[in-house]
Parts: sequence; C-alpha cells; structure tokens
Amino acid sequence: MTGITFYDLASNRGAMSPFTWRTRLALNYKGIAYKTHWLRFPEIEPYLKSIGAVPTEKNPLTGADLYTVPVVSFDGKLVVDSEAIAEHLERAFPDGPTLFPPGTRALQKAFATFFMAQVFFPTGPVIGPGVPAIVDAESAEYVRALRRAPDGAPLDEWAPLGSEKRANAWTVAEDAWGKLAAVYCKSDGPGVWLSGTAPIYADFVVLGALIFMAKVVTQEEWKVVTSWHDGLWGRLWQAGEPYMQAD
Amino acid sequence: MTGITFYDLASNRGAMSPFTWRTRLALNYKGIAYKTHWLRFPEIEPYLKSIGAVPTEKNPLTGADLYTVPVVSFDGKLVVDSEAIAEHLERAFPDGPTLFPPGTRALQKAFATFFMAQVFFPTGPVIGPGVPAIVDAESAEYVRALRRAPDGAPLDEWAPLGSEKRANAWTVAEDAWGKLAAVYCKSDGPGVWLSGTAPIYADFVVLGALIFMAKVVTQEEWKVVTSWHDGLWGRLWQAGEPYMQAD
Repeated sequence: MTGITFYDLASNRGAMSPFTWRTRLALNYKGIAYKTHWLRFPEIEPYLKSIGAVPTEKNPLTGADLYTVPVVSFDGKLVVDSEAIAEHLERAFPDGPTLFPPGTRALQKAFATFFMAQVFFPTGPVIGPGVPAIVDAESAEYVRALRRAPDGAPLDEWAPLGSEKRANAWTVAEDAWGKLAAVYCKSDGPGVWLSGTAPIYADFVVLGALIFMAKVVTQEEWKVVTSWHDGLWGRLWQAGEPYMQAD
Repeated sequence: MTGITFYDLASNRGAMSPFTWRTRLALNYKGIAYKTHWLRFPEIEPYLKSIGAVPTEKNPLTGADLYTVPVVSFDGKLVVDSEAIAEHLERAFPDGPTLFPPGTRALQKAFATFFMAQVFFPTGPVIGPGVPAIVDAESAEYVRALRRAPDGAPLDEWAPLGSEKRANAWTVAEDAWGKLAAVYCKSDGPGVWLSGTAPIYADFVVLGALIFMAKVVTQEEWKVVTSWHDGLWGRLWQAGEPYMQAD
C-alpha cells in the first residue's frame, strides 16, 4: 500500500473527532497529501485489528485493549495515536513548517496534559451528549453503551438541552476555558497562536476540541462560546480555517 | 532605596518557600545582585503593608487581601508575585540568560498551571505537615492556624509520619510526579532541562518545589524521591545546584 492513508471517524457532519482533527490539521498545515479512510464507531476496532494496528492503550478500568483513531498508514507502516503521529510527521517531513519548534516539545506535552485535564474534561458534560445526534443509528447506540459519566449516568442524562444541569455545566466549561484564555494571553507577538506568529501542535490540540465542540453543541451555544474571553476562540477558529479542509 | 531587595520567607533551614525559590533561582541564574530581607510567617502581611506592597491576590474563600512573598524592590519600585517578578526581570535585564525563550511564554504559563494542579497540589499531604518543624514556635502556630485540608483537617493530621495515610499520600505523590516525568522525557537534546540545554523559568518552578520538599520531608523520604523515575529529580537538582546559593 503506497501513499498516506488517514483513518478517521465518520459522522453526519464530516470529520468531528477532537483527536483525529489534531492529525488532520497537522497534515494540512505541513502540506502533506493523504487520502482519508472513514470508519464508523463500531467499525474502528475490527477494522484496525484486521490491518494489524496495535491498540492505542488499555482501558484503565477493565485492562482491555483499546483501538482508536487517528491511525495513519505511511506506505503501509502504521502509526497509532495523535501524539505519535505528530512526532512521526516531524521526523518524516522535516522540510515543511514545524509542529514542535526547538525547545517546545516537553512544554507542549505539559500543555496537552493541562488542556485535557483542566479544559477539555470539564467541558465533557456539554459536548459528550451531542455525539449520538451526528452519527448513524448503530454508531449512536455504540456510543451510548460506551460513554458513562463517572457516576454511571447515561449520556442522555448528563446535561439535557434546556436543563439547569446544562446551564451549570456551561458555567463550569466557561471557567475551564478561562484557564486556557489566561495561557493564550501570554502569547508572544501580535498573532493569536500560542507560540507567536505560526501555529504549533498545541494549537491544533485546542482547535481539534473547538471543531468537535462546534459540531456537537447547538448553534446558539456555539455562538456564545465564540464570544467568551473577548472572542478569543472565534479568532483562533478563523486563524485555523486554512488548515481545516477535509477530503 | 537603591539596589535590589528580595523579600523572602525565613526558616530554620534557610530559604524554603517553593514560590520565593522561583525568584531566587531566576535572580541567581541571570546573575543579578540582590540583598535578602528575611521575614517570618507572621511578619509578612504587616511588613509588606508597611512598605506599601499591594496584595498578591484575594483569599478565594473569604475575599480578604492576601500578602505573600516573593516581593522584590527594584530601587524602591515593588514587584509582587513570582510570575510578575520573572517577567519584570526579563524586561529589566534583557542581556542575561533568558527565562522565557521566544515562543515559550504562553507554554510556560500552561506548564505552571499543569504543575500546580496536577503535580504540586497532589503532593500537599506529604509536604504541608513538615513546615511547622522548620520554623520558630510563633510561625509554627501561625501556619497551623492557616493551613487546613479541604476537609478541614488540621495540618498535623494530614499524613503523620509512619501512618498508612502517609504511605498512601506518597503513592499519590509519586504518581503525580510521574506525570511530570512524562513531560521531562520529551525534552529536546541531551540535558535534563525542559527546553534543552539551558534552564527556563518552568524548570525553576519545579526546582522550587523540589527544594521545598527536600526541607520538609524526612531524609529517608527525600532519598526515595530522588530515586523516582530513574533518578530524574536527583539529576534535575544537581543541574540546578549552581543557582541555589542564598545570601
């Protein structure tokens, strides 16, 4: 198998996974040509096994192997996990724009850990429940069976539209993104990017989450998000649009 | 008042505050001459008020003004808070080695947020209770009155030496520092520093916490810490020793 095949998650609204978007944004930013192979939720594990991909990680509760996208095939060599793919892209395509400017690799790892624990996970109650509505019926059942709140609550009960739970969850989310805004405020130079005038991988981690959020919340809710923190997330979205194309 | 006066916290074991150490390490690294004015715990607020320092922040529970060290006087101009002091040092002394290499300012802010929430605070139960033993009796009472666990437990009950609570707290702490080890593992180049061959401010945030920890845990416990994660913290300490002098 020659060329680059990018295994991404299918939805009714195109590419939507916050994790595969990191890879897609990185590929597009570096100007690397690829073809997308779309997989629906229930297809991911059997298909990835069938092509010999290794599991991404273990389920922390059951210890079972977890197979996840993104996976990228480089002329048949499979690379699994968004972070490993980004590192591979830097090594294999050193001439394009860089995802990890010198001296930022470890800091970007810390950034991703900060972002997941303190920004993305606190946003979970408002974004998780929107997933079933944008995938096919079989995938929706698959997601409902898989995703449970820490207290065991099913997805549809996390923060139903119009509920007080949802209003409270949005307050928590805005506060969490405020921590990220305080980080972006410290950026060098006039641009919106974290590191100055050009995006780095950490920006794509954030953009991936924003793209996911835009697809699973209501239009009204998304409009509010883009107005938070003096419109920072709307500006970041605009800056990232040149790298959001999907094939 | 001419020259640079550095207001630091006094203890029986010299400089010990994880926050003032950030400043001391930064001053030493940049080769900036200063004199230390030592303050005991109960002296901090009245003394800082008497010289016209602004409060660092509000107590999140009571809303009361909080006065904390480090504070640095630059020819009488007071700068409060370790982060603001570091930024001031970069602007005022641009010719020395840099704490914030270009493109890393925002990432270092994210690092500090990650470090405090996911590494330092989870270490609290093993380090907080060691403070009264290394300060004078009046300061010890002051600290005991001030510091309570989130559940209201007094400092001496958090994790007493030899208790199962303490053993469990050390397990939590090691796991937390493991997250930081995963960050340091991604560092560019052969050195131990986060960003490559020279320290950055984020390294001093970590070293400040390590110096504090070394002074408030037992010698046996500290030996164990320096053996964690293939001895990473022991190596970082050694690399930082040239900047640990106190006047």
